[in-house]
Amino acid sequence: MLAYSAPRQDMQFVLKDFLDSEQHYANLSGCETVSLELLDAILDNAAKFAEEVVAPTFRTGDEQGCTFDNGRVTTPDGFAEAYRQWGEGGWQSLTIPAEEGGQGLPSSIGMFVNEMVGAANWAWSMYSGLSGAPVSCLLNGGTEELKQRFLPKLLSGEWGGTMCLTEAHCGSDVGLLRTKATDNGDGTWTVSGTKIFISGGEQDLTDNIIHAILARVEGAPEGTKGISLFIVPKIWVNEDGSLGDSNNVTCGSIEHKMGLNGSATCVMNYDGARGFMLGEENEGLKVMFKLMNFARIGTGLQGLTMCERSYQGAVAYAKERLQMRAISGPKNPDGPADPIIVHPDVRRMLMTQRAISEGSRAFLYWLSQQIDLSKHGSAEEAEQANALLEFLTPIAKGFCTETAQEVTYLGMQVFGGHGYIAEHGMEQVARDNRISTVYEGTTGIQALDLIGRKVMGSGGKLLQNFTKVIHLFCQEQQDNAEMAAFIPRLQELNAEWGTLTQQVGEGAMKNPDIIGSASVDYLMYSGYVTFAYIWARMALVAQQKLAAGEGDAAFYQAKVTTAKFYFQRLLPRTRALAESMVADPESIMALLEESF
Amino acid sequence: MLAYSAPRQDMQFVLKDFLDSEQHYANLSGCETVSLELLDAILDNAAKFAEEVVAPTFRTGDEQGCTFDNGRVTTPDGFAEAYRQWGEGGWQSLTIPAEEGGQGLPSSIGMFVNEMVGAANWAWSMYSGLSGAPVSCLLNGGTEELKQRFLPKLLSGEWGGTMCLTEAHCGSDVGLLRTKATDNGDGTWTVSGTKIFISGGEQDLTDNIIHAILARVEGAPEGTKGISLFIVPKIWVNEDGSLGDSNNVTCGSIEHKMGLNGSATCVMNYDGARGFMLGEENEGLKVMFKLMNFARIGTGLQGLTMCERSYQGAVAYAKERLQMRAISGPKNPDGPADPIIVHPDVRRMLMTQRAISEGSRAFLYWLSQQIDLSKHGSAEEAEQANALLEFLTPIAKGFCTETAQEVTYLGMQVFGGHGYIAEHGMEQVARDNRISTVYEGTTGIQALDLIGRKVMGSGGKLLQNFTKVIHLFCQEQQDNAEMAAFIPRLQELNAEWGTLTQQVGEGAMKNPDIIGSASVDYLMYSGYVTFAYIWARMALVAQQKLAAGEGDAAFYQAKVTTAKFYFQRLLPRTRALAESMVADPESIMALLEESF
Repeated sequence: MLAYSAPRQDMQFVLKDFLDSEQHYANLSGCETVSLELLDAILDNAAKFAEEVVAPTFRTGDEQGCTFDNGRVTTPDGFAEAYRQWGEGGWQSLTIPAEEGGQGLPSSIGMFVNEMVGAANWAWSMYSGLSGAPVSCLLNGGTEELKQRFLPKLLSGEWGGTMCLTEAHCGSDVGLLRTKATDNGDGTWTVSGTKIFISGGEQDLTDNIIHAILARVEGAPEGTKGISLFIVPKIWVNEDGSLGDSNNVTCGSIEHKMGLNGSATCVMNYDGARGFMLGEENEGLKVMFKLMNFARIGTGLQGLTMCERSYQGAVAYAKERLQMRAISGPKNPDGPADPIIVHPDVRRMLMTQRAISEGSRAFLYWLSQQIDLSKHGSAEEAEQANALLEFLTPIAKGFCTETAQEVTYLGMQVFGGHGYIAEHGMEQVARDNRISTVYEGTTGIQALDLIGRKVMGSGGKLLQNFTKVIHLFCQEQQDNAEMAAFIPRLQELNAEWGTLTQQVGEGAMKNPDIIGSASVDYLMYSGYVTFAYIWARMALVAQQKLAAGEGDAAFYQAKVTTAKFYFQRLLPRTRALAESMVADPESIMALLEESF
Repeated sequence: MLAYSAPRQDMQFVLKDFLDSEQHYANLSGCETVSLELLDAILDNAAKFAEEVVAPTFRTGDEQGCTFDNGRVTTPDGFAEAYRQWGEGGWQSLTIPAEEGGQGLPSSIGMFVNEMVGAANWAWSMYSGLSGAPVSCLLNGGTEELKQRFLPKLLSGEWGGTMCLTEAHCGSDVGLLRTKATDNGDGTWTVSGTKIFISGGEQDLTDNIIHAILARVEGAPEGTKGISLFIVPKIWVNEDGSLGDSNNVTCGSIEHKMGLNGSATCVMNYDGARGFMLGEENEGLKVMFKLMNFARIGTGLQGLTMCERSYQGAVAYAKERLQMRAISGPKNPDGPADPIIVHPDVRRMLMTQRAISEGSRAFLYWLSQQIDLSKHGSAEEAEQANALLEFLTPIAKGFCTETAQEVTYLGMQVFGGHGYIAEHGMEQVARDNRISTVYEGTTGIQALDLIGRKVMGSGGKLLQNFTKVIHLFCQEQQDNAEMAAFIPRLQELNAEWGTLTQQVGEGAMKNPDIIGSASVDYLMYSGYVTFAYIWARMALVAQQKLAAGEGDAAFYQAKVTTAKFYFQRLLPRTRALAESMVADPESIMALLEESF
């Protein structure tokens, strides 16, 4: 049985040493009361909740899965009870502004809480995650009346929620959607259509489910310019917030998936269901915009949770499994063989897992501070935070999930044949993770967002904004001999990033297909350089702690070693990406369709 | 539903154009009667069998899986009937020498037959594959009497077989095994112990199951020097080949696995089961040696089958799924959107799948010709074939399965969210494939075999033997302007391969951990260079056909384009591997065990 133990020490390192949360919150308008003591208390409570309440549902949730019977969905044992405790504990409203009925904590607090409950069981945490979708839509596009009608029970966890975009014929190309909405003339709308892949579209955790639905008003312009956003309850909600009749919202079936079996993925039929429009007509995507960005970072977080889970399993096994002797001589001479953690290739796998996991954590927590700044910082801070977030969001989504693919693969590999057996949980982690490079926009979509919309779309400015951050850091540290293993290489890659971008941009003037053909290589390249910056900064902090003789020296030493491992063993991949991304797209585009 | 259609055109290209099978068989002692007509007939019949009899069991086999009840295993619907037809069709004895009761066809014929039935349903083909294990052991180590007793019904498919190595505490480290054998003094032995992960250990396809078991005779030396090989029937076999009493062989349970659900993975208890020793006492591994090498190439073949299956699914979907417009203008102006095959990134994924699939096929079929030569060639040919096989077997196993991991990943990615849904079969291909990098020796074990035993163990000779083959090819083609996209790069990498090997070897004198830390990078590097050689040769053949105006020009043109794609987009990965493999192992080895 794969255990989960919240990685408290590394989380504390990232929050306190690396990100100096004390200073961060002290400077954050309206969040000055967030002290390190409060942070510790939240971290402890969330860790306990994740370990003791959520983690026990991990294997059983996969084994039992959700069941569907005549429109009703039954979630696995323990899901409903855990959800009840989640709501009662106030976790669902943690980072919602106090004036909207939440607890008013900054987003960065939500990040580490979500890491722990997600790592404990991502399938379970999908329900709370998606319940945040109508909340976000209401906050961005709801009237005061609608907020009062729906928010309280969404925030208490008594009601759940969904986000409904996908239809059978339209996934990435949301502009093709056909679900219809007609104005009833009384402030309500009638929504009709079928949505697929709706996580938590039906479940037995909450008394009601509030669906946030993208639909098209009759006569609306084609494509993405004619999409509006609606909020449609499963059971009608009266003005006073009490429940009315059922509202023609039915679940047609649930999908049989590769993983995340505890999360019900529903086909939802809206057959003349009543609801309310959020925001302006035909501007539904604008209301959803922030939600989508956060959901993308949240999916990057899934990558981290799966890495952490897989790493924990692999390390435990590698310390316990005895096979063969270390080449440098027996390390467990009294046993029949040495634990496999002595073998260089096993360590290479564990170090890869570690470098990606810890790198993802530091990167995503840093981004969560940028989200804080975008909301509570000065105008200048908010502007810079937004520029960083715009640029780094597709990297967080694309890179942290693609690398999680590798990390969960390696976790199984460390287990050998036992990794393929369900009871150990390692294959479940890989299956649960597998969707992360797909939903909330595939890696290909993230890559086009990055290189097309963000980089080329800003004339390179959003890239330069970040490479300047890296450049300043390198300049600061260039005379620090302790950082010689990191700074010159980071500086070189940071410059190459710009050169490659220019090359792709110039190529695109002659052949627009070069953008698409370079895009995923570009995304991955960007991820490796971004992580190099993050790892160099972590190495610096760890070295400073070691020099000052503060804290757990072995921990800081391991941090520096992992940074070196990252630079020596993973960062070289930029060489391959740099070469392939600028290759002539002809060999990609030349084949006749019938030759495939 | 994921269809399977045997890739006849590419198979014909590899067998006839690339490998000149006509000439190959004509020169092969004892195989001169194998004509192209016979080849075509076998290919056609096997393709029909795979498509019509085996492929229909693919999805149902996964959905139903095997069930276990009180020692009995029930395989999914259709498995037994397909197995009966397989035996009756003579497929099980195809490549067994005529003098041993087989059909006497060369091994290379078995390779393409196995590709098709394996691609149709690998889980099903495990039963026939493993039934070949006791056959191979008997041929290598059985007396005439034992062969007569066991072979006829193993070859007719009336009996099945297994290969039993793994025990709960010993996988990669086979020397730790504890299963005991005692001499009954009457030519029989009694075997007692428990084996795990035994594919087909119990099933309902055949009347009897013949287990090939590694065990230790009391008082045998520790480790691999004290291992003997036994053949133990589930039901006793009398001297005349008739069945006797049951033989204390029981299945304790079957595993719940990530994939290959139609293949029963059994815990087998041998509780004083009677059997016979094959080969000499304590030399069981020697008898099994050839089998293990062929099983490794056979697992490489699994990689190819999964690539092909995933590619076929992804191409069909990419031609049919309409999402967004081509950046160069609508390609399907009358439809709501263009088929996604117009998008460069989708093509990049399909071309990657294609380059790996076709590269694996050509590589493995070429190896199968080497197997033919090792058995039927002149002394000189056999020596060279054996040298190539020794060196290339871990590459075939390691590289063709690791790349299949990526290819089956990309197949799901092309499908977007639908790839995660069971009914489309794409996630099944990924799950079924996942074990291929583990069983028959993990990638890490293959990598150590390659760099340690084969390269360093031969003082570099086995590597030089192959780089010389590449070198001669490059010399021949260096003035061929048509080959300018391939030869200089191949030449450069071929030389670098030697340099890197030397660097690792010299490093290992000072620090033996460099071998293990470099090993997997070295294996993957070797695979990419090997495939570059294969692709360059295929490009040459295709260009010659184009120049001669022979055959299907679009097919040959696609071959050249795919070769260019491989060189431009995949081969650059050698840059990353070359850099990381020679990095100081310190960052891999430095962490204290307790710091993990």
